[in-house]
Amino acid sequence: MGYFLGEYDVAVIGAGHAGIEAAMAAARLGTKTILFTLSLDAIANLPCNPSIGGTAKGHLVREIDALGGVMGIAADHTFLQSRMLNRGKGPAVHSLRVQADRRKYHAYMKKLLESQENLDLKQAEVTKIKVQNGKITKVITRLGAEYTVKTCIIASGTYLNGVIHVGEVSYESGPDGIVPAIGLSKSLEENGITLRRFKTGTPPRVHRRSINFDALEKQSGDEKIIPFSFTTDEKLENKVDCYIAYTNEDTHQIIRDNLDRSPIYSGRIAAIGPRYCPSIEDKIVRFSDKPRHQLFVEPMGLDTEEMYLQGISSSLPEDVQMKFLRSIKGFENLQVMRNAYAIEYDCCNPLDLKPTLEFKAIKGLFGAGQFNGTSGYEEAAAQGLIAGINAARLVLGQAEVTLARSTSYIGTLIDDLVTKGCSDPYRMMTSRSEFRLLLRQDNADERLTPIGYNIGLIDEERYQQFMEKIEQIKKEKERVQKVNIAPSVPLNELLVSRGTAPMVTGTKLADLIRRPQLNYLDLAPFDENRPGLPDDVIEQVEIQIKYAGYIKKQLMEVEEIKRLEQKKLPEDLDYGQINGLRLEAREKLQRVQPRDIGQASRISGVNPADVSTLLIWLEQHGGK
Amino acid sequence: MGYFLGEYDVAVIGAGHAGIEAAMAAARLGTKTILFTLSLDAIANLPCNPSIGGTAKGHLVREIDALGGVMGIAADHTFLQSRMLNRGKGPAVHSLRVQADRRKYHAYMKKLLESQENLDLKQAEVTKIKVQNGKITKVITRLGAEYTVKTCIIASGTYLNGVIHVGEVSYESGPDGIVPAIGLSKSLEENGITLRRFKTGTPPRVHRRSINFDALEKQSGDEKIIPFSFTTDEKLENKVDCYIAYTNEDTHQIIRDNLDRSPIYSGRIAAIGPRYCPSIEDKIVRFSDKPRHQLFVEPMGLDTEEMYLQGISSSLPEDVQMKFLRSIKGFENLQVMRNAYAIEYDCCNPLDLKPTLEFKAIKGLFGAGQFNGTSGYEEAAAQGLIAGINAARLVLGQAEVTLARSTSYIGTLIDDLVTKGCSDPYRMMTSRSEFRLLLRQDNADERLTPIGYNIGLIDEERYQQFMEKIEQIKKEKERVQKVNIAPSVPLNELLVSRGTAPMVTGTKLADLIRRPQLNYLDLAPFDENRPGLPDDVIEQVEIQIKYAGYIKKQLMEVEEIKRLEQKKLPEDLDYGQINGLRLEAREKLQRVQPRDIGQASRISGVNPADVSTLLIWLEQHGGK
Ligand SMILES: Cc1cc2nc3c(=O)[nH]c(=O)nc-3n(C[C@H](O)[C@H](O)[C@H](O)COP(=O)(O)OP(=O)(O)OC[C@H]3O[C@@H](n4cnc5c(N)ncnc54)[C@H](O)[C@@H]3O)c2cc1C
Ligand SMILES: Cc1cc2nc3c(=O)[nH]c(=O)nc-3n(C[C@H](O)[C@H](O)[C@H](O)COP(=O)(O)OP(=O)(O)OC[C@H]3O[C@@H](n4cnc5c(N)ncnc54)[C@H](O)[C@@H]3O)c2cc1C
Repeated sequence: MGYFLGEYDVAVIGAGHAGIEAAMAAARLGTKTILFTLSLDAIANLPCNPSIGGTAKGHLVREIDALGGVMGIAADHTFLQSRMLNRGKGPAVHSLRVQADRRKYHAYMKKLLESQENLDLKQAEVTKIKVQNGKITKVITRLGAEYTVKTCIIASGTYLNGVIHVGEVSYESGPDGIVPAIGLSKSLEENGITLRRFKTGTPPRVHRRSINFDALEKQSGDEKIIPFSFTTDEKLENKVDCYIAYTNEDTHQIIRDNLDRSPIYSGRIAAIGPRYCPSIEDKIVRFSDKPRHQLFVEPMGLDTEEMYLQGISSSLPEDVQMKFLRSIKGFENLQVMRNAYAIEYDCCNPLDLKPTLEFKAIKGLFGAGQFNGTSGYEEAAAQGLIAGINAARLVLGQAEVTLARSTSYIGTLIDDLVTKGCSDPYRMMTSRSEFRLLLRQDNADERLTPIGYNIGLIDEERYQQFMEKIEQIKKEKERVQKVNIAPSVPLNELLVSRGTAPMVTGTKLADLIRRPQLNYLDLAPFDENRPGLPDDVIEQVEIQIKYAGYIKKQLMEVEEIKRLEQKKLPEDLDYGQINGLRLEAREKLQRVQPRDIGQASRISGVNPADVSTLLIWLEQHGGK
Repeated sequence: MGYFLGEYDVAVIGAGHAGIEAAMAAARLGTKTILFTLSLDAIANLPCNPSIGGTAKGHLVREIDALGGVMGIAADHTFLQSRMLNRGKGPAVHSLRVQADRRKYHAYMKKLLESQENLDLKQAEVTKIKVQNGKITKVITRLGAEYTVKTCIIASGTYLNGVIHVGEVSYESGPDGIVPAIGLSKSLEENGITLRRFKTGTPPRVHRRSINFDALEKQSGDEKIIPFSFTTDEKLENKVDCYIAYTNEDTHQIIRDNLDRSPIYSGRIAAIGPRYCPSIEDKIVRFSDKPRHQLFVEPMGLDTEEMYLQGISSSLPEDVQMKFLRSIKGFENLQVMRNAYAIEYDCCNPLDLKPTLEFKAIKGLFGAGQFNGTSGYEEAAAQGLIAGINAARLVLGQAEVTLARSTSYIGTLIDDLVTKGCSDPYRMMTSRSEFRLLLRQDNADERLTPIGYNIGLIDEERYQQFMEKIEQIKKEKERVQKVNIAPSVPLNELLVSRGTAPMVTGTKLADLIRRPQLNYLDLAPFDENRPGLPDDVIEQVEIQIKYAGYIKKQLMEVEEIKRLEQKKLPEDLDYGQINGLRLEAREKLQRVQPRDIGQASRISGVNPADVSTLLIWLEQHGGK
């Protein structure tokens, strides 16, 4: 019954956020690629919040863009409202977040994929992989089509044996009425891959006209919009407002009264949900003293009346959902169009993956996205990009590409996954990075565009523009270090009005910029020969001068770690034969198979004494 | 576990083409309506051809519009190319057909439904109906939500126990990766409804860049576009071209060689497919002497590269599909994005329905669309409209609305269904009407807009505009009957050049228009006092004058039939007790329970002798 239907360098299973980046990268790098999806109508579906970015996630999108990925461009082309979050805090945690037009985002991505050379798009369910001599050789669809492949990336999201739970009811389904993927899990397990059961939940979608907006707070977009993509230069505009509502004691009481009907609290779902995207019932149990929780009312698109209720995901029964929702001010007459639900699905253990996201045990087989135990569109896209790059490079016989923790959140995310693993759906947060001041959203291009260029995902034109920007920043930094500003009555008036000391002698412009009360633009009237520079260049000059001390300190820490990372550990090392390691450390090291002492030291359960033991062993065995 | 979630006058199960018209009509008539769908993202999905209209189907769309339905407006707003088919033939068979932008059509309809007062839209699977004392009382969803309803319309399309077949493989699914509806069938059967198994097939969708268009014939849209809706007055524009390709002997041989692998020919599907939308394998078997079959390459939308191959639906295995497709000139490198398949589903027997589409046995329960055993978007929409109107009127205590065969294709369609039943998916064709010359697409408004106005679906403004048009037609018809045209050299030159006799004496303008070689516009130069009139008025004047004789003849036949239709038969008549009826006739009459002698005479298996017997019986029993 099987029949041959094609030969590809790279097969990508899943056209969600991970699969799209993977397929686009592989095809753009010149490898013949095929992308499978259960439904061409659900490509790039946003099954949860209709938004891209957010704290730490916005960083990921900027990094994806800086490397040559597509998520940022698509978001810029289809967003409805844009906001830079955390503006009140330091630049390290500024994060861009947009409301996306859900169906337009889908259509944009579909067209992009369809237009990509080297890339075939196919609606078909992959139900089997074939592995020979520890190498992926084929993917096989439900209909019996066999594709010979050199590499394969699994980006199956929440679809593998997807089961939806609402209160006491559960049934097999993917999100949004799409069929689940049945079959592939079994084949993966037959090929030695251990699968786990994770779950995630989503809130209801409601009808706009059923909301009393007078009872809610309005939240408008930013006046000046910063795009996600470093290449976007059109003027962007907000098209909609969002709104804020609050739960209250009644809401919480209704939920508490019905906890026994929750599939999670009643123990009917054993799968593990995302700690950092808790359901409303989780929030009420875990933060029982909070009198109210905020929720956001967000439009799903320009041509629909559906609205999304961010912050109130639930798997309580539908009648309970209706009851607690209608207890919220402004929601008294709420009409729910799609109810909240939780979904359970199969995913792998990322400890089985290398930092390239290739399975350690199966050459050429990669995992990306929710399948790797993460949660979130941006997390998925970030992994997809790295998996796609590495699959293509494996085919092309080029060296692996991995990103250091010190250069990116993407590197941090993947290092966390393959070094620490995850016991619940992993989500990116700025607190996961020890180099937050270096990994700003504003300098993602500086950190990663040269890498994207070397890989081949950034074209010459874009790279030249980028280099020009870097040159401008450098020149202007030099200039402000040199330019001397003389004291004057108007300048001192400004200084005093800002609550900072007046000048008595000439001062370097850079030193003035460094004062927290002042910024680069304030000083324009006193800086006669200031060149006209683009906003993004000014921003870099200012941040690099203002935070120079902190940045320097973090850079020194990076150097320290780099030293450890240069101490490579041999592949397939048998940690059982290293004396002096504690049992726990031995087991963990054996499982993770770290690439270097740096990675080894980050494994939870490996302590400094174990690291010393490893260092000694390395020295004795000729490690560098 | 059940919980009450609302009380509605009308519940519609299914937001396909039938369900949309049903729900819109019911809500617009003022009844509180809820519309259920398995996926809000697949509302108004076009799972087969991305087109609306076509021979006879175009008539249905114009009739739906004339009555106040929405299909025509949606098509006008989202089409890509428009053509009036059969222009070379008489006006009776002129049929409008447009290529629709599949996703835009969906988005337009979704927004329309969302914006409709009295109408709630809900993504939920209805799995049970509750009937009490022969009356529908509740619909219940998979999650356990119970809605109290006065009426319910089942418009479940191809989803009930949907099973997809491709060659030797079959699996449960709805079309386009949407989940099937499992559960409702059982509940319907428990409530005494007999279900049948029908099937239908669809061709592949392919990637535009894989087609060699140089080898195909281009087919452009009409220069002057006629809208579907009588209310559309914007200027419409074509946006795309279509193309024509041909199968050849190789194609046919490949198919013949593999017939044993077809689920139909191998006997694995017992369900019955549409006789008049045959698969390519059916065509090759049934028309074995045809050396080639035409197929059309049609775009699926402006923002996708997917193209649809009309005329080549198949349920052969995917490898055979690939092989025969690539044997077609221009398709040598064809890339298939979605393969062809057949789908099997549960539907009712329309003989169990009244002409209002209400189930005879369950008060308040209606069927519409594919569920009633038909095939096609337009057929579905037509039934949905009638079911929606009658459900609302039942709730409001108003009289039933049914359309006569002589007023419409809609009436013909429904009469065929409930009188003759169908043994395969029923499809509208102009040959199904005995009144073709009356039921033209151009005069749908004249036939049906007064009815739509009386029902309440046509508003006052539109009705006044319509009445004005009718008045203009009437006046101009009177004028051309009166105006005398004098013979003249230029006129006679025109007549001779057209191959018709020159004039010697003055002639009535109407008589000149009646000549087949001439039309109304030709005679403008000789018709001094001609008023400026809109195109649609001129069209009516011309057709009504040219075809006056034929039209009169058909109108006399209508009168004849009306007499028979006035002879009402009692409800629930026991035909077993009528002597003189042949056994077959008795059984058929008992099954159909015709409303009058006219309907009785159309039942296949009831012959003129049986009709006479019935007439005698009626006279004896005081029937009129
Ligand atoms: C109910 C729900 C709740 C969520 N809650 C959160 C949340 O709280 N926080 C958050 O950040 N994110 C949340 N998400 C978003 C979540 O992270 C994503 O599902 C995200 O889209 C992951 O991207 P992905 O690319 O890994 O997979 P997906 O976007 O799910 O894409 C998977 C793709 O794989 C295809 N596929 C799967 N199996 C096969 C197969 N065998 N053959 C062919 N194709 C296949 C599918 O058709 C699809 O194209 C939620 C999602 C859902 C559905
Ligand atoms: C494979 C295929 C081939 C086709 N071939 C042809 C052809 O050859 N010629 C032709 O003219 N037409 C063809 N069609 C079109 C066909 O006529 C349609 O499916 C048409 O859309 C019928 O309209 P409908 O409104 O009856 O149902 P659909 O458009 O199918 O809509 C059904 C609706 O019901 C909903 N639904 C079903 N069950 C439930 C439930 N239990 N609870 C809640 N919602 C439910 C679904 O979500 C959907 O919204 C084909 C369709 C398919 C899928």
